[in-house]
Amino acid sequence: MATLSAQRKHKVTIVGSGNWGTTMAKLVAENTKANSSLFEEQVQMWVFEEEYTIPKNSRHYNGSDKPEKLSELINKVHENVKYLPNITLPSNVIANPDLAGSCKDSTMLVFVLPHQFIARTCSQLSGKILPYARAICCTKGVDVSEKGIQLMSEAIGKGLNVYCGALSGANIASEIAKELYSETTVAYDPPPMDSRHPTPSGSPSSSQVNLINPELEPGKRSAQLTPLPNEYPPLSHENIRKLFHRPYFHVHLVNDVAGVSLGGALKNIIALGAGFVDGLGWGDNAKAAVMRVGILEMVKFGKMFFGESARTSTFTEESCGVADVITSCSGGRNFRCAKMAVERGESIGAIEEKELNGQKLQGTSTAIEVNQFLKAQGKEAEFPLFTAVFNILEGKAKPQDIPELIEPKH
Amino acid sequence: MATLSAQRKHKVTIVGSGNWGTTMAKLVAENTKANSSLFEEQVQMWVFEEEYTIPKNSRHYNGSDKPEKLSELINKVHENVKYLPNITLPSNVIANPDLAGSCKDSTMLVFVLPHQFIARTCSQLSGKILPYARAICCTKGVDVSEKGIQLMSEAIGKGLNVYCGALSGANIASEIAKELYSETTVAYDPPPMDSRHPTPSGSPSSSQVNLINPELEPGKRSAQLTPLPNEYPPLSHENIRKLFHRPYFHVHLVNDVAGVSLGGALKNIIALGAGFVDGLGWGDNAKAAVMRVGILEMVKFGKMFFGESARTSTFTEESCGVADVITSCSGGRNFRCAKMAVERGESIGAIEEKELNGQKLQGTSTAIEVNQFLKAQGKEAEFPLFTAVFNILEGKAKPQDIPELIEPKH
Repeated sequence: MATLSAQRKHKVTIVGSGNWGTTMAKLVAENTKANSSLFEEQVQMWVFEEEYTIPKNSRHYNGSDKPEKLSELINKVHENVKYLPNITLPSNVIANPDLAGSCKDSTMLVFVLPHQFIARTCSQLSGKILPYARAICCTKGVDVSEKGIQLMSEAIGKGLNVYCGALSGANIASEIAKELYSETTVAYDPPPMDSRHPTPSGSPSSSQVNLINPELEPGKRSAQLTPLPNEYPPLSHENIRKLFHRPYFHVHLVNDVAGVSLGGALKNIIALGAGFVDGLGWGDNAKAAVMRVGILEMVKFGKMFFGESARTSTFTEESCGVADVITSCSGGRNFRCAKMAVERGESIGAIEEKELNGQKLQGTSTAIEVNQFLKAQGKEAEFPLFTAVFNILEGKAKPQDIPELIEPKH
Repeated sequence: MATLSAQRKHKVTIVGSGNWGTTMAKLVAENTKANSSLFEEQVQMWVFEEEYTIPKNSRHYNGSDKPEKLSELINKVHENVKYLPNITLPSNVIANPDLAGSCKDSTMLVFVLPHQFIARTCSQLSGKILPYARAICCTKGVDVSEKGIQLMSEAIGKGLNVYCGALSGANIASEIAKELYSETTVAYDPPPMDSRHPTPSGSPSSSQVNLINPELEPGKRSAQLTPLPNEYPPLSHENIRKLFHRPYFHVHLVNDVAGVSLGGALKNIIALGAGFVDGLGWGDNAKAAVMRVGILEMVKFGKMFFGESARTSTFTEESCGVADVITSCSGGRNFRCAKMAVERGESIGAIEEKELNGQKLQGTSTAIEVNQFLKAQGKEAEFPLFTAVFNILEGKAKPQDIPELIEPKH
């Protein structure tokens, strides 16, 4: 199949243009240019249109204080002056305020939207994309409720009736935008409906199995997928890698979409726990212990609710697991605010109020949602760290109790 | 066998009394007291005798400026005033300057000596201990040369003709002495010569297999071991755990002595690598990436040279692996000096000279020894991070080259 030369190229759209979305547009556009036999060079980037006035301290300030359309500004100065200032975008990134227009004829949709915009965006796009398009979700987090867990990639896949993989890792956007070295993990494992998407040997074909939310059972979903026409190059792991890998952004492909997605959500609970003990001044041993215990609870969570499709190694060996935990527990927002709360003797709510203008931390809502879910499953006791963090947030436990609460029973 | 009541109790000696040795004596003595049906309460701590004058700022200064014997001071004030000041030791820690005397009749020898004293101490002790004594090595590091790798525990086991396990983890001694929460990993897996030392079901009995140094082949060694007499309680994982586990020091038992020992040595190479990229100001993504790649090189190293006895999970899931890497890459000496070297544009040698009074970092010698070994095996290219760190130390590569040097080949 490698000898079969494809007549068509993949068209790629970045759905989103915030800090992370614009960073993804930059690196993807560098790659479409470098791999122009596989991809159309032009990369569309959907921009939620707004008016923006270039500030006086911008290198693009031209004396005019008139607001301009953000998409037009981006295309004029090749910089997202509002959300990723001072980073020059390749000229083949095309900002487009028309959602459906930006995705028209695209075979690869890279979703980089804030969590809360995903459902609405999918419903606006539904029926307006190629039936055989594929997607990759770069938004971290999962939807957890008492009823079940829905991965962002599942929400997109269901909303658009396409296959959707996931990208996650120790990825602070501003560092990647400056081309400082980092790594990421991409999970991509479409069902074997398309014979040209072979699963690499040795890896179990996993198409995530959600044991809790049977509505999301993959057999049902994949049956409706439209195969990618033969005139396109296959969206193999090798070619997906070519879309994301850069000398400063090392990509590792796996099949475990559930693991990659869970890592990006559950790490925020761990970061709160690490912040709590660090706030007590307990030092580096204690912080590392909380991180280690947290990684193992991630592993257990994946296995318990997603079965064998969530692989231990995704959490313990990939960037989306151990490395993202490390980065989040170094200087991440959840870690810092939890630490501050303990140091000042204030509640997390008070810290959110003062330090984040009342914006909520991702970790606090994830900890609460995950606890509701575990409680409904009768599994709280099997996740002592996640449960301890929840109880500390609720004022029912103290950070000092963590060692006793997470001590293995013998 | 649990119903068989033992007539004799285990006597425990701590061989060493530095910062870490005294900390171990403290926690072990707390445990012998708490488990006095298994262990004799008194814990001997061998002290390398020296004269010491209590400084004026000590809480034990009594107006006399006359030097006293350190062992006598420790027994008088229940504090190792020189090596672990301001920490009160339980009164059942007995400092003893007589090496053979301190180990007489002991069934459990806990070695906590600096690397360079182990061989000499074992030769002094040889023939003077109970033939059925067992040992645990708490000294980190391994002896690596072109010829092969010898674990500290192997050196002790061979030197004394006893079985020796290993204890290692994210364990900064001063934090543990203050009873701040931490975890550790104990590897204990004597050959099945003694039917009362069952290997927990599910774990492969591993008695480490050193593929490189056939002299250390375990069959040969274990054949000469003397079984523990029946009148002692078995040295099962459960009972070993009772000797080390504290509410502030959580112990996890494994069988993988090789993995536990390698973790404590190889992490120092990783800490240098992490320090190099952090010194460049590359941020948290890059540092986490180097740590992750390093953990995977540890896994590979264990598998390649110790076979299946070195388990992946020891490195990726235990305190002696991932957690020790995290702690060492947070504020450890190797990390800090490597970072400083890059920030100041100086060699590591110059930093060792200025910051450590010429004392050598453990990481630099380990990196050099491991490289000699890998070169002799023709395996340098399979450990790109370890090799990159060595080449940077040698001035043959720059920290900036790390991403390219460790990029997986596709």
